[in-house]
Amino acid sequence: MIEPGPPTSLDSFHRGKFWLVQPADGGHRAGIDAMILAAAVPDGFAGAVADFGAGAGAAGLAVIARCASANTVLIEKSPQMADFARESIGLAQNTELSRRASVLEADVSRSGDARTRAGLADRSFDFVIMNPPFNSEADRATPDALKKEAHVMQAGLWDSWLRTAAAVLRPRGRMALIARPESLPEILTALEGRFGGAELMMIHPRQAGAAIRIVVRAALGSRKRLTVLPPLVLHGPTGNGFTERADAICNGLQSLYGD
Amino acid sequence: MIEPGPPTSLDSFHRGKFWLVQPADGGHRAGIDAMILAAAVPDGFAGAVADFGAGAGAAGLAVIARCASANTVLIEKSPQMADFARESIGLAQNTELSRRASVLEADVSRSGDARTRAGLADRSFDFVIMNPPFNSEADRATPDALKKEAHVMQAGLWDSWLRTAAAVLRPRGRMALIARPESLPEILTALEGRFGGAELMMIHPRQAGAAIRIVVRAALGSRKRLTVLPPLVLHGPTGNGFTERADAICNGLQSLYGD
Repeated sequence: MIEPGPPTSLDSFHRGKFWLVQPADGGHRAGIDAMILAAAVPDGFAGAVADFGAGAGAAGLAVIARCASANTVLIEKSPQMADFARESIGLAQNTELSRRASVLEADVSRSGDARTRAGLADRSFDFVIMNPPFNSEADRATPDALKKEAHVMQAGLWDSWLRTAAAVLRPRGRMALIARPESLPEILTALEGRFGGAELMMIHPRQAGAAIRIVVRAALGSRKRLTVLPPLVLHGPTGNGFTERADAICNGLQSLYGD
Repeated sequence: MIEPGPPTSLDSFHRGKFWLVQPADGGHRAGIDAMILAAAVPDGFAGAVADFGAGAGAAGLAVIARCASANTVLIEKSPQMADFARESIGLAQNTELSRRASVLEADVSRSGDARTRAGLADRSFDFVIMNPPFNSEADRATPDALKKEAHVMQAGLWDSWLRTAAAVLRPRGRMALIARPESLPEILTALEGRFGGAELMMIHPRQAGAAIRIVVRAALGSRKRLTVLPPLVLHGPTGNGFTERADAICNGLQSLYGD
């Protein structure tokens, strides 16, 4: 129930495999970031996936739309965005997925007892995906309050989000995040002592352009070395169309790491 | 004078533009790592370049072979490798470059007075390049003592080398390093508070393979954001030949960052 909330839109993802109710223009609308992040979960993954900062649920729903044996908890702090996530799950178009999805209104930056009381139990997930509000504070340009809440990065966010991810994952559980390249130092520091075997993938708009996003996937307690995988290039040299690989990844036809 | 030292070889670089005297098989032989690192210095660069861990001098000489207004100090801890560097500078084939190159036998990991006494004066360089011994201790495979000295990475090496780089650079001076991807967390931590505007470039053997090296270039005291540039791919899909770009970079015909 979103009354008298902002105007909404109904958008399809994965070529109509699932739909989202979202703010029509304000707020944090889901796009390719969420689709790329979801694709970091391997094909055929079975288990419980926590979607931290789920917004209207795009990434979590994209995972379970591709992985038939996965279930997801969409975890979102903003009551308004959590309402959108609940609306999305309730859509007739998403009936197939709704048995495997639920919404938890909670702040994943909490720690200790407060985290447990918020519904985030230790060792309860097999995979955590996170798409935090990652525009830096110095970068905010919009007065829209909802957009601001989603995009303004708080100092120490990566540390608190990765601390919670480490706590709620079962042994050998995995985590994937999408971020701006400039956040890499803070992310690598926050992984230390918690996650290992980090697999970095740079996302370039075009072959010849600097990366606009990075995806980092890592495993709880792993002692494997950090690796840098071949990048994902979104567009060809000209035009706005996706490359074949980017199109397949964004439409749930292929995993990001090819596994 | 290298008597009764190991057998040596005389190798040409940049299509005969300069030559190196090196250990024939033991020791740390210069190769494409040094050429790629040297290419991180922009075309037409004018000023003093410190080559940390210079070995026989490959990277420093490659810089001044491409940049006619640059001079270099080849800084090497191992007396034996410093001898090779001196021999290299003295070669008749390198007469053109020898006026702009010198050797300093010193340990760049020193700090404070010890560093100054070793000949590393504060604010005396415009660019520092470093190609440290970057195989991790867990990875050593060879019994060759000289090779071991060059390849075994000491804990905290990046911090001490980047501390020295920050000290010996003039204001707004720049630094470039080549490393294994797994060293990225330690490198980014060591840059913090010293260098900014980090430009990361991943080096992939082939388009479809994980990166084997990373190059990081940064500016002293810069507050610019970290960026990830398009990667350098060394080889085509098949065969052992270099890609056109890799060939140009390794032969001093093109800078790594295209600047």
